[in-house]
Amino acid sequence: MVMPIDWSSVYAGRAERMKASEIRELLKLLDQPDVISFAGGIPDPALFPTLAFREANEKILGDAKIAAQALQYSISEGYPPLRQWIVEHMKSMGVDCDIDNILITHGSQQALDFLGKMLISPGDTALVTAPTYLGALQAFNPYEPRYDTLAPEGNRTPLSYAEAAEREGGRVKFAYLVPDCSNPTGETLDETGRLKVLDLAENLGVPVIEDAAYRAIRFEGDAPRTIQALDCDRSGGIDACRTIFLGTFSKTLAPAYRIGWICAAKPLIQKLVLVKQASDLHTSTINQMLMFEVAEKTYDRQVEAVIETYSKRRDALLRALKTRMPKGVSWTEPNGGLFVWVTLPEKIDGAALLARAITEERVAFVPGKAFFATESKANTIRLNFSAPTEAMIEEGISRLGRLVKNELSH
Amino acid sequence: MVMPIDWSSVYAGRAERMKASEIRELLKLLDQPDVISFAGGIPDPALFPTLAFREANEKILGDAKIAAQALQYSISEGYPPLRQWIVEHMKSMGVDCDIDNILITHGSQQALDFLGKMLISPGDTALVTAPTYLGALQAFNPYEPRYDTLAPEGNRTPLSYAEAAEREGGRVKFAYLVPDCSNPTGETLDETGRLKVLDLAENLGVPVIEDAAYRAIRFEGDAPRTIQALDCDRSGGIDACRTIFLGTFSKTLAPAYRIGWICAAKPLIQKLVLVKQASDLHTSTINQMLMFEVAEKTYDRQVEAVIETYSKRRDALLRALKTRMPKGVSWTEPNGGLFVWVTLPEKIDGAALLARAITEERVAFVPGKAFFATESKANTIRLNFSAPTEAMIEEGISRLGRLVKNELSH
Repeated sequence: MVMPIDWSSVYAGRAERMKASEIRELLKLLDQPDVISFAGGIPDPALFPTLAFREANEKILGDAKIAAQALQYSISEGYPPLRQWIVEHMKSMGVDCDIDNILITHGSQQALDFLGKMLISPGDTALVTAPTYLGALQAFNPYEPRYDTLAPEGNRTPLSYAEAAEREGGRVKFAYLVPDCSNPTGETLDETGRLKVLDLAENLGVPVIEDAAYRAIRFEGDAPRTIQALDCDRSGGIDACRTIFLGTFSKTLAPAYRIGWICAAKPLIQKLVLVKQASDLHTSTINQMLMFEVAEKTYDRQVEAVIETYSKRRDALLRALKTRMPKGVSWTEPNGGLFVWVTLPEKIDGAALLARAITEERVAFVPGKAFFATESKANTIRLNFSAPTEAMIEEGISRLGRLVKNELSH
Repeated sequence: MVMPIDWSSVYAGRAERMKASEIRELLKLLDQPDVISFAGGIPDPALFPTLAFREANEKILGDAKIAAQALQYSISEGYPPLRQWIVEHMKSMGVDCDIDNILITHGSQQALDFLGKMLISPGDTALVTAPTYLGALQAFNPYEPRYDTLAPEGNRTPLSYAEAAEREGGRVKFAYLVPDCSNPTGETLDETGRLKVLDLAENLGVPVIEDAAYRAIRFEGDAPRTIQALDCDRSGGIDACRTIFLGTFSKTLAPAYRIGWICAAKPLIQKLVLVKQASDLHTSTINQMLMFEVAEKTYDRQVEAVIETYSKRRDALLRALKTRMPKGVSWTEPNGGLFVWVTLPEKIDGAALLARAITEERVAFVPGKAFFATESKANTIRLNFSAPTEAMIEEGISRLGRLVKNELSH
């Protein structure tokens, strides 16, 4: 008689802390053609530079010598020409650095995991905005942090953060934020807010994680300077700065090759290279070479195309909300990115609304509460405008408006 | 005046535990054309099915609809047709399973990281062979395990393992081994040894991690049944079995696409899918599609070609060792894989020998001590025979033999 294995006793605390995300369930809805989905955060595939990737593949695999390198193991830091391209890109955002400040990651989600793995011991405190990027919470959760609310425009003292962290038996380890056209709100933090975050981090002696996933997708107006550029000015340069900048090609070129990067001080990058090596050796060699070729050739043009398409969809979404939503509903008006954040009247719970939205109106979105680490505002929802077309947006918000009016009349 | 950040105070214990690997330094030598390197574990790029990857890229990116899927985000579990291919592949190895037993990982190194992340709490015990795969130790180390020696042919009682683990304040969490043509020794564990590992794991109530990276690369003789197949027979099937099987395409098709897999009981896979989602969302969509196309078309032929080339190199290496090495040196005679394990006379330290080997003879290898979790045998070295040609092997071992003789005469 063989004793069956008891998996639940095998799992360490870490695995128990991982819960299935509602997003995963929602993504499955995208396959149902009659559901209009504002739930994902996925780019419009019509914008992918497919031809450029085809040509780059031919260039790389069509040359035996280059192919032999492209299909082989490579260094954990990442493909040097791609890192050099990113160096120039960082310079265009005010950050003077060199390739030893850059680590290529398997999407910027992996950067979040690495930073959690490296910085968080159980009981330590992570400062995150409310709301914040859901994927960051998922990446940090397994390392068992406590969360406290980063409020760049608020007036909490550094001491109040430090004391609260100590009461829970840990230390504040970092401040994480998406300062540009944020996920989930679409809002951009102004320079004053950015400097306040740096002041706070400096007072606490911790790094700032600047998740810049949506920075390139700005429709109008000048972006505030990156937190890392402001930091370099104050601290004297990249190797003295405390900001850890996370970039990605997922929203501008294509997500499927899974190429993101971390730009930070060399002492940190050197440690992160070891984390990368232990975690998966390196990011796909050929994918890095492809991304370099395609970025070199098409990056600016791609960003323009993305901005042109998404800004029209943002306009369509804001127009539809204005027309279709009853009084008592408010929303952000983003200058870029992929999302609008809607606040419903207090009595409407976003999660309960979703259930009805799918069954009754065949429209989907993400309930806002998933984006809060601590106290959540249940009467919020996130709407994506990169995936649905303008016509779908018009029809989808018409359905959603009807549903909200219906809820309010009960 | 800005206070500089003190990174060492920011790192948690985890990062401090990560040390630069000697292997990384050694890999850099591969770029120096006059060094004959037996150090890597890399496949011969001449064997990569480059044309098949080119054609698969054209098939995928040449069709707008398929390309739109290939370049988009996808599910964390992995591309279903690839998982189905793996299901059939697992069946050919005696494991009856379905696609919900399969998770695609970013190389099998990522599987090791996930299992460490999921199963090890600080102070828990991991059982590993002595020597064992260096990359597994690197993957597990950040999660702060204690190691104990798995000796499948030894006679330690389960109780002795459990008691030793408890004395250190944790529990035994798993037994990890590379049973086929192992890294670093090239040896294969026979069926009796495999059953003993299962007995031990059952007694301890823990999973067995069967790292099958080299299983396909067997030159002669029948492979013993996989541990997972033996386990399924005893336990009643894949969902009742305790064995976690790790597979990879890195040694048979190409490493650079970073495609590996885990085959295990569904309750475990469901947890691992959450780990995958939190860690990097999913493995590159297009890379999984490419690997499916290429595996479907070329897997058997590729494995044949790999076996033909590497078996000749193994022969050349064993022949050269026999001719060139002085008395007192012994080595394994692997039936497959990529490595031969050499035991030098007690007085010769492999690491010290490497330093001289590089400067005096322009030949490289990996010192054996890197492969031991606890007490190490310093008079060992690992030789790879997949990367150097037969002529390079002959010349390289001639150089190495001269050096060893020289050491002995001092």
